[in-house]
Amino acid sequence: MRIDIISVVPDVLKSPFEASILKRAIEKGHVEIHFHDLRDYVTDNYRQIDDYQFGGGAGMVMMIEPIDKCITHLKSERDYDEVIYMTPDGETLKQGMANQISLQKNIIILCGHYKGVDQRVRDHFITREISIGDYVLSGGELGALILCDAVIRLLPGVLGNETSALTDSFQDGLLAPPIYTRPADYKGWKVPELLTSGNTPKIEEWREDQAVKRTQELRPDLLED
Amino acid sequence: MRIDIISVVPDVLKSPFEASILKRAIEKGHVEIHFHDLRDYVTDNYRQIDDYQFGGGAGMVMMIEPIDKCITHLKSERDYDEVIYMTPDGETLKQGMANQISLQKNIIILCGHYKGVDQRVRDHFITREISIGDYVLSGGELGALILCDAVIRLLPGVLGNETSALTDSFQDGLLAPPIYTRPADYKGWKVPELLTSGNTPKIEEWREDQAVKRTQELRPDLLED
Repeated sequence: MRIDIISVVPDVLKSPFEASILKRAIEKGHVEIHFHDLRDYVTDNYRQIDDYQFGGGAGMVMMIEPIDKCITHLKSERDYDEVIYMTPDGETLKQGMANQISLQKNIIILCGHYKGVDQRVRDHFITREISIGDYVLSGGELGALILCDAVIRLLPGVLGNETSALTDSFQDGLLAPPIYTRPADYKGWKVPELLTSGNTPKIEEWREDQAVKRTQELRPDLLED
Repeated sequence: MRIDIISVVPDVLKSPFEASILKRAIEKGHVEIHFHDLRDYVTDNYRQIDDYQFGGGAGMVMMIEPIDKCITHLKSERDYDEVIYMTPDGETLKQGMANQISLQKNIIILCGHYKGVDQRVRDHFITREISIGDYVLSGGELGALILCDAVIRLLPGVLGNETSALTDSFQDGLLAPPIYTRPADYKGWKVPELLTSGNTPKIEEWREDQAVKRTQELRPDLLED
């Protein structure tokens, strides 16, 4: 998979790709990540990448021309499955959407910054608008990181143990059951005895019960879907 | 505001705090961010920070002892309003929750990694569990970044123009209206004429209409609340 990320502050994006799972996914060749600084696409006519809103109001708006140039340049080099814009009024990211995007080959992610992009960018270049949740961030960069992480960890070979991702919360519509590790007794706080019994069928049953119970308590909406 | 972030991979967290709005918020003294590496809290008895699950199953679990030591150390130095654990089965982050947390003084954010933390950490140390959305990430670090960004941008003085955050999506229960900037005509794609008319009352009316219309189309659920 190849992901091209367009941003006015690409430095924000660096460290999460230079450590842990994302770093290893890149090193092993499971994914290619390319950052594009919009400032590299300004021309003589418009030196800026943002400007005031037509009609007045607080906050700057990202101009269409540098974005057009960057996306058009990328599209001239290869085909893209999606040109995604990260925005709080987009479709809300869910696990199923991450699963689906993880099957794509090349995607572009445009990060909004300031008040966002000129509406004409959305009308003419964007194929999909995604929000990571009902809150506002200082820019789309963090949203892009979330989308990348949610998608990349699903690519075959990225996680050490294939079954690890499949037993996560949401993959079976349930929250994960409680988990415990050593020591079995820590300052008098003990793990449930069953878990150290070696009775695998009973343990599996308990986990299923706990997952359902936790989902009913914390997220009954997941059971309705 | 002071935020202490506990992680097994603190390097992941770096770059978003070293650029753009978060960097300036730190430089101006609006917020203090402290990273804590859990590996600094391992003892002779348990050299590791994670171990296999009791009862079997894929994925490692973060052990209680280093987390206990780190949180206990921090709490001995100052009082904390919340000890937050980032987890997909937590309460879903919304703008209102970010507004509320932005009023707190000291918070700890514990980032889960691998399959998450030993349940006893959640039972005995955590005061609030937060999810940034219904998807699984490779660790709580990215969730912690999202929470920090959503909260820090609300602190007085962080955004250049106070009104800028107030006109964002969600703050009034509506999605933001479309925005446009120069040029008024780009390759034949024109901005709505009204926006260049200078008729401020009409423009405000149009924006309100557009915000309602966009919310009805894309997120009718927001209007029901």
